[in-house]
Amino acid sequence: MTITIVGVGLISGSFALAMKEKGFAKKVIGVSRTQASIDKALQLGIIDEALPLAEAVAASDLIYVAIPVDATLSVMSEIMDLITDKQIVTDAGSTKYRLCRMLEHHPKRKQYVAAHPMWGTENSGPEAAVKNAFAGRACVICEKENSLPSAVAFIEKVYTTFGMHIIYMDAYEHDRHVAYVSHISHITSFALANTVLEKEKEEEAIFELASGGFESTVRLAKSSPAMWAPIFLENKENILEVLKEHIKQLRKFSTALEQQNQEALVAIMQQANTIKKVLNPQFGKQKDT
Amino acid sequence: MTITIVGVGLISGSFALAMKEKGFAKKVIGVSRTQASIDKALQLGIIDEALPLAEAVAASDLIYVAIPVDATLSVMSEIMDLITDKQIVTDAGSTKYRLCRMLEHHPKRKQYVAAHPMWGTENSGPEAAVKNAFAGRACVICEKENSLPSAVAFIEKVYTTFGMHIIYMDAYEHDRHVAYVSHISHITSFALANTVLEKEKEEEAIFELASGGFESTVRLAKSSPAMWAPIFLENKENILEVLKEHIKQLRKFSTALEQQNQEALVAIMQQANTIKKVLNPQFGKQKDT
Repeated sequence: MTITIVGVGLISGSFALAMKEKGFAKKVIGVSRTQASIDKALQLGIIDEALPLAEAVAASDLIYVAIPVDATLSVMSEIMDLITDKQIVTDAGSTKYRLCRMLEHHPKRKQYVAAHPMWGTENSGPEAAVKNAFAGRACVICEKENSLPSAVAFIEKVYTTFGMHIIYMDAYEHDRHVAYVSHISHITSFALANTVLEKEKEEEAIFELASGGFESTVRLAKSSPAMWAPIFLENKENILEVLKEHIKQLRKFSTALEQQNQEALVAIMQQANTIKKVLNPQFGKQKDT
Repeated sequence: MTITIVGVGLISGSFALAMKEKGFAKKVIGVSRTQASIDKALQLGIIDEALPLAEAVAASDLIYVAIPVDATLSVMSEIMDLITDKQIVTDAGSTKYRLCRMLEHHPKRKQYVAAHPMWGTENSGPEAAVKNAFAGRACVICEKENSLPSAVAFIEKVYTTFGMHIIYMDAYEHDRHVAYVSHISHITSFALANTVLEKEKEEEAIFELASGGFESTVRLAKSSPAMWAPIFLENKENILEVLKEHIKQLRKFSTALEQQNQEALVAIMQQANTIKKVLNPQFGKQKDT
């Protein structure tokens, strides 16, 4: 099949590489407003050709949209108006509710599969695309019942071939959940980076000490503002709720420390230790702290 | 040489393995109040023998203390009273100020080297000890001028042979700095774990989604409360200062989001992005988010 990737970056690039590697795609067309990304993607062999959106859609069996979630809304609308009843459209966006509501009554809605492959790195652009991406992570499919069973089956086959496991979820619940297990992690990383950078203004030597623990908690602070600002804005209500709880937890810790309450500190940490049960046991083993 | 490790766990165990591997130590004696740790360490070949503290010290050229920082204060006092003028004592504690002040006027102070090898993992106990630990990280030596040059030179040789780079620092400055580049990362991880665990009470499915980004920011929440409570208490003033700044940063983010101020959100993230310059470039590459 021929596929079009709309947006030529980390996720779409990794998707394109995997689609060829796994024998799903013979040809990949790239659509991007950024000439440098197109040039890079051609050079890296991620795409075979670059075309304007309408021509790319007309030539493709599958259209894969992976651009910032605000831009996705308008581009997706355009794509859905362009497709025939033989084509499948999917996206990789980190928020799903608004997009699903927007497309709810579109006559071609059934050809769209609302998916969120929960993989990424803190890097961006086509040069950040990697082979063997996606494996070992969850792929959420939202509002499955609004898509053609054959379209859902195909997208599931693709992602399971990449090594993902499929989870079905209501779009609203999806957005609430990812606020907790993905979005907040990025926010705390950004905030932690800025906390330490504030200090650095006074003390130059501070980073000579940066240990593995610091690096792992602050790694996501390298993530792209262009990608994340729209996600945060679109998932505002859920994220504000998580942030409120997170600040409450930090205050609880701070109060226990201020009162030199060792018992309370230990209780907080013992509670946190129970996170072990939900973390992938092969992840994080023997990582430096 | 013969060395004694006081505390038989992650750090001392990894130290003992490296001391043998690099040819520094012929024999390792273990001192621990926990019989299970001694049994495990003997079984794993981390220690050759277990002895009570006084006998172990009498038989050793180097005494290496790696136990919680509150216990270190009293044990170190005992060890310093026991040593002859031929022995070297060092510790691996994450706080240095109180210990350095306590030993300041001890007649054997010069034989103690106040070191903080900034390596660890979230795991604990002798079974968590690993070969090739320490490499690529900083080792801080505090108040070098209060130790014998030959003792400092030896400890430096050991840690540089392990692949660490040496940084010299005043004990007070050390404690302030590690609050920013190590201790706060652990606190945010504990708090993040508890934030999500709070939510889990309502929503069972939440962890099916946990992505790599969540795992990397929450990994340190698995760390040992017995080790960390004394560190936090001992470094209370510095940590409260960092926590205050960190909560301020989270509130700033929250306010920008509440006001749907995309420009402010992007500015916060762009500022955070500059953390790239201080992170080890080989760390975190192509990690899942």
